[in-house]
Amino acid sequence: MSKNHLSPSPAVTAIFLPSGRRGQFPRNITILDAARRLNEPIESICGGHLACGKCLVQIESGRFPKLGIVSAPDHVSPVTDEERAWLKDQPSPTPPRLACNAHILDNVVVFVPEHSRGHQQTIRKDATERVIEVNPAIRQLYVELAPPALDDHRGDWEHLQAALADQWELSGLSIDYPALLRLQDALRVGKWRVMVILWHEARVIDVRPGYHEGIWGLAVDIGSTTIAAYLCDLQTGDLLASDAVMNPQVTYGEDLMSRISYANSNADGLKKLHRAVISAFNRLAKGVSERAGVRATDIHEAVVVGNTTMVSLFLNINPRSLGEAPFTMADQDALTLAARDLKLLLHPAANLHILPAIAGHVGADNVAVLLAEEPHKQDAVTLIVDVGTNAEIALWNGAQLYSASSPTGPAFEGAQISHGMRAAPGAIERVRIDRETGAVRYKIIGEERWSDAPPLQLSPTGICGSGVIEAIAELFLTGVLLPDGRFNPDSTHPRLHWQGKKGVFELATAAETLSGGAIAITQDDVRAIQLAKAALYAGCKVLMREAGVTQLERILLAGAFGSYIDPFHALVLGLIPDAPLEHVAAVGNAAGDGARIALLNQEKRLEAQRIARSSHYVETATNDFFQEAFVSAIHIPHQSDVFPHIARWLPAKTERRRGRARRSRGRRAQTDVNEE
Amino acid sequence: MSKNHLSPSPAVTAIFLPSGRRGQFPRNITILDAARRLNEPIESICGGHLACGKCLVQIESGRFPKLGIVSAPDHVSPVTDEERAWLKDQPSPTPPRLACNAHILDNVVVFVPEHSRGHQQTIRKDATERVIEVNPAIRQLYVELAPPALDDHRGDWEHLQAALADQWELSGLSIDYPALLRLQDALRVGKWRVMVILWHEARVIDVRPGYHEGIWGLAVDIGSTTIAAYLCDLQTGDLLASDAVMNPQVTYGEDLMSRISYANSNADGLKKLHRAVISAFNRLAKGVSERAGVRATDIHEAVVVGNTTMVSLFLNINPRSLGEAPFTMADQDALTLAARDLKLLLHPAANLHILPAIAGHVGADNVAVLLAEEPHKQDAVTLIVDVGTNAEIALWNGAQLYSASSPTGPAFEGAQISHGMRAAPGAIERVRIDRETGAVRYKIIGEERWSDAPPLQLSPTGICGSGVIEAIAELFLTGVLLPDGRFNPDSTHPRLHWQGKKGVFELATAAETLSGGAIAITQDDVRAIQLAKAALYAGCKVLMREAGVTQLERILLAGAFGSYIDPFHALVLGLIPDAPLEHVAAVGNAAGDGARIALLNQEKRLEAQRIARSSHYVETATNDFFQEAFVSAIHIPHQSDVFPHIARWLPAKTERRRGRARRSRGRRAQTDVNEE
Repeated sequence: MSKNHLSPSPAVTAIFLPSGRRGQFPRNITILDAARRLNEPIESICGGHLACGKCLVQIESGRFPKLGIVSAPDHVSPVTDEERAWLKDQPSPTPPRLACNAHILDNVVVFVPEHSRGHQQTIRKDATERVIEVNPAIRQLYVELAPPALDDHRGDWEHLQAALADQWELSGLSIDYPALLRLQDALRVGKWRVMVILWHEARVIDVRPGYHEGIWGLAVDIGSTTIAAYLCDLQTGDLLASDAVMNPQVTYGEDLMSRISYANSNADGLKKLHRAVISAFNRLAKGVSERAGVRATDIHEAVVVGNTTMVSLFLNINPRSLGEAPFTMADQDALTLAARDLKLLLHPAANLHILPAIAGHVGADNVAVLLAEEPHKQDAVTLIVDVGTNAEIALWNGAQLYSASSPTGPAFEGAQISHGMRAAPGAIERVRIDRETGAVRYKIIGEERWSDAPPLQLSPTGICGSGVIEAIAELFLTGVLLPDGRFNPDSTHPRLHWQGKKGVFELATAAETLSGGAIAITQDDVRAIQLAKAALYAGCKVLMREAGVTQLERILLAGAFGSYIDPFHALVLGLIPDAPLEHVAAVGNAAGDGARIALLNQEKRLEAQRIARSSHYVETATNDFFQEAFVSAIHIPHQSDVFPHIARWLPAKTERRRGRARRSRGRRAQTDVNEE
Repeated sequence: MSKNHLSPSPAVTAIFLPSGRRGQFPRNITILDAARRLNEPIESICGGHLACGKCLVQIESGRFPKLGIVSAPDHVSPVTDEERAWLKDQPSPTPPRLACNAHILDNVVVFVPEHSRGHQQTIRKDATERVIEVNPAIRQLYVELAPPALDDHRGDWEHLQAALADQWELSGLSIDYPALLRLQDALRVGKWRVMVILWHEARVIDVRPGYHEGIWGLAVDIGSTTIAAYLCDLQTGDLLASDAVMNPQVTYGEDLMSRISYANSNADGLKKLHRAVISAFNRLAKGVSERAGVRATDIHEAVVVGNTTMVSLFLNINPRSLGEAPFTMADQDALTLAARDLKLLLHPAANLHILPAIAGHVGADNVAVLLAEEPHKQDAVTLIVDVGTNAEIALWNGAQLYSASSPTGPAFEGAQISHGMRAAPGAIERVRIDRETGAVRYKIIGEERWSDAPPLQLSPTGICGSGVIEAIAELFLTGVLLPDGRFNPDSTHPRLHWQGKKGVFELATAAETLSGGAIAITQDDVRAIQLAKAALYAGCKVLMREAGVTQLERILLAGAFGSYIDPFHALVLGLIPDAPLEHVAAVGNAAGDGARIALLNQEKRLEAQRIARSSHYVETATNDFFQEAFVSAIHIPHQSDVFPHIARWLPAKTERRRGRARRSRGRRAQTDVNEE
């Protein structure tokens, strides 16, 4: 093969550990080149220009009978002065070598340490810990060019392409306009040595002078209430900074329907809603960048998730058609856009990837949850519930993913509740009522202590969703509330008052609050929560029926509400179908996790697309069984045989019997509820 | 093959004329579908929805022994009422049929008339008439969708993709962001019937409601002095409107070097130059659109050509590196950009194609000239000269294209000439001096009559490039100027005056001018033109030598200067090498023609790329022979044996002998010139 017949290179064997990959190579090949030929991943940014120092490997010493070779440090070429500069902080007894600078002279065994392997890994610290391979849509390459000569009539871009082909075996590349704008200065300032940022192995999106490590990405979850951003180091996979702000669109409408209506009925409604979310995105991008010590304009890649209405408004598309049957979205599949088309405060050639949606009411955020939790890769029959103003429900029955949306309304978020408020400092988030004494205690957001362990720094100002759920469940468990949702006329609890036929229960007395008014749970509050929880429960039941599932093995509660809610109280109230309490878990902002995963690993974007397309969507709006399940789910709780896993905590039979004895009154109450 | 075994379709034969394509098809296939299977091009915009009426064909009647079949109008299905509406204006004896609506029942011969063939043609009306196939980068398609249903969870884009796959056999399409923004409204306003504009068979760039014909494109030639725009109908290929404005960058510098210097030495120099050309582009786009009755935002495709500095400034790239050796441009190859990235006043999803360049001094405008003139597709040894502030020269020797740039300076454009001015109204553009009487007459721009046939409406205000050339050539032919370029001390011409040792020749007397001052040709003017023409001539000689060409068969003069200049005077002066006078022709704005060709036909863009890459560039700046040829080309004219084709018009031998006798003085003059 060699053209030089006078000095044929005898073959040498190189074996890489821990992978065990082995091959025969011509003598004098660098370890890096040998590794590349075997597809053995060794990290290298500079491509052998001794500029990055990433490709450190260990030359093993000794006789390896199982491998059949003898290896020694002097089986590779000696350390050069240039290389020595990179090794000065390395352990001295058996110093590593730079794979790009060490030429193989005789058989060697090369150990590739974890930190030198091509794709580093990161671990999410959440309910479901997972290992994510770092394989983003962009990568950085170092290239050296010869300065142009008078007899070379190529342009700088053609010159760079040739160098990329030569040094990185890349061909057929294009260059994005903002990169072309910077190309000439970068080459000249960098003295013909530049870092190239390459997108999807196809397009050069940035060229920077000199050797300069670092690529960053931003994952953003646009919720109706909260927008959360995660700045990631795309080289290591590390989460560098995260932040969340309230979605400023709240000004134009609390829930999705009112925002759709605002966009639709005001001349510049869409424009206002669009600009609001873009400016929030940009503030977040700026904020997390500053915190991490990078510039927002150094972010070259972004992933966005959100429900279909949020994505629509983010894209400046009127969500009108999502507000009426058949709830058609503009685009269902994953979408890649130039960030500059949306005026995002990122690098001008940054790309934005939006995950696909499943249906008009099950958006990219839900796909992100599925991507993060991967129920379809596990054996357990799993229900995933993401509660916001709508509840999105996914079910894996061991063979197929199902999904649905259920119109819970905003009660779970504290809206339409007498003293309801968002989960903000001052909100009552936890409630306990002693079953013996009836003593009430609560915990408020922003305060470590419970109300029965003063002094408190903050006074309660209202009650948030999780507080309402706990209060109603506790009232039911102590017999103050009847299974049909009425306050028990026989209860003698001193905090229970009556306004005509409707009971009111004081959680915090006037003396305890900042405003000087009591914070109470009213009969109407109970009714609102009953409606919401019946809708959620019915949605779950529809999916279970569709999927032929009678018993859940695992329930994951996603989203902010899912994180705050106590699984026990949720089960007591019948928000979710029965399941072993120890297998009901909150998974935090799983949508944000999914967005981060899709940011760190481009393969996961393809998986998201597969998830979205293979998920079987069940429309609840036209489903007769949903209506039926909804009506029969209004009571608290269902018969204990429906909830065997929490039956032991439910009120004693006498309580339930009393409830049953008053069935006619209960039916009336239920009718009231349906008429509300 | 048919699944229905009860009614197998017997095969029928269809033959298309004039192409002669024939095939066997299942009975009942439409003529359009049969044609598509044979790749027989029949125009159809609506794809068989009876909305465009483009696919008219003639069913031939009779026995066709050579073709072996009998054809008759009733061998296809009868005309339906819907089809009849399209045929009402058609000739009655043998009315045509819509190919999409006529089903083949028995063997037929179908004649496809010129106007129904897929690719229409247009003819340029120029020195070199050429037929251009209309095959632009975009096309329009009509699609009908079923309205979305509640059990259909696809997005509108996925819905449209399915319809495009079904009705037009298109797959793997993407949608550009501005098109996505309009998609939902277009579908609903159009009641699920839309026109789609497709770019390069790959990307949907617009969706418009209902059936709506029309696609437009803009070709723009950005010259240092003039920017010309051509609005074309991309359906027919017609030129709808054209216009030209002065390049507003002139404010910042007359020639390329001064603009490069302005961009380089002023903080916002680049910005100003860039904005100037963009705003001129947009004014032109608006102007030609208004004139043609379309909106500029309906233009979906544009092609831009210009020299490398003009393209650089247009792209907002500092042309610094083009101002100094090795004259490296940012990008050499053809470039496609989103027009919105440059804030062009076109459709927001319009694309912009910039033709490739050959080298730092031979840009996309020269490639466009070659694309328009196609010397490489002809037998004649052809020289193409495009004179601006630089002269770009191309030579085809029958086997290879050569190109070079020659630094003529701006003298040919009237700059650096005592009374020089641009070719604008009032400029002397033609000059004649009677060889017997010495009487001077001239013609000025904006005036039909010559100065010896008054009354004139305008008075001369200066002299433009072609006027200077003619004046100097005429002065030489009448013996007032000597071959070495000095005014003849022995001349007794009454218009010749002396200022010290330097002669001055009055073309227009003080009485004739508006300013009241005479318009004259000075010794320095002659020197400036001598330098410029020597540079041009030397450039031509360098290419001829490189290409092994001793005799040219054809010279084409491109650009505005090339159009105004008189070939005879150019030859007398020795601007260009000798050639048969009848084979020296001006080809107008060939760069603009080339841009139009690349706009109308995407295949021509590939050809432009091939031309640019296969052209052999010769650098004159470092070429010893160029220096030599330059020095020896300063005299007027060269020996008659060098110019056999115009020898008979040259001054009598006595004149030349006198010139030769004064060689020592001539040498001194030449030295002066070189020192200027």
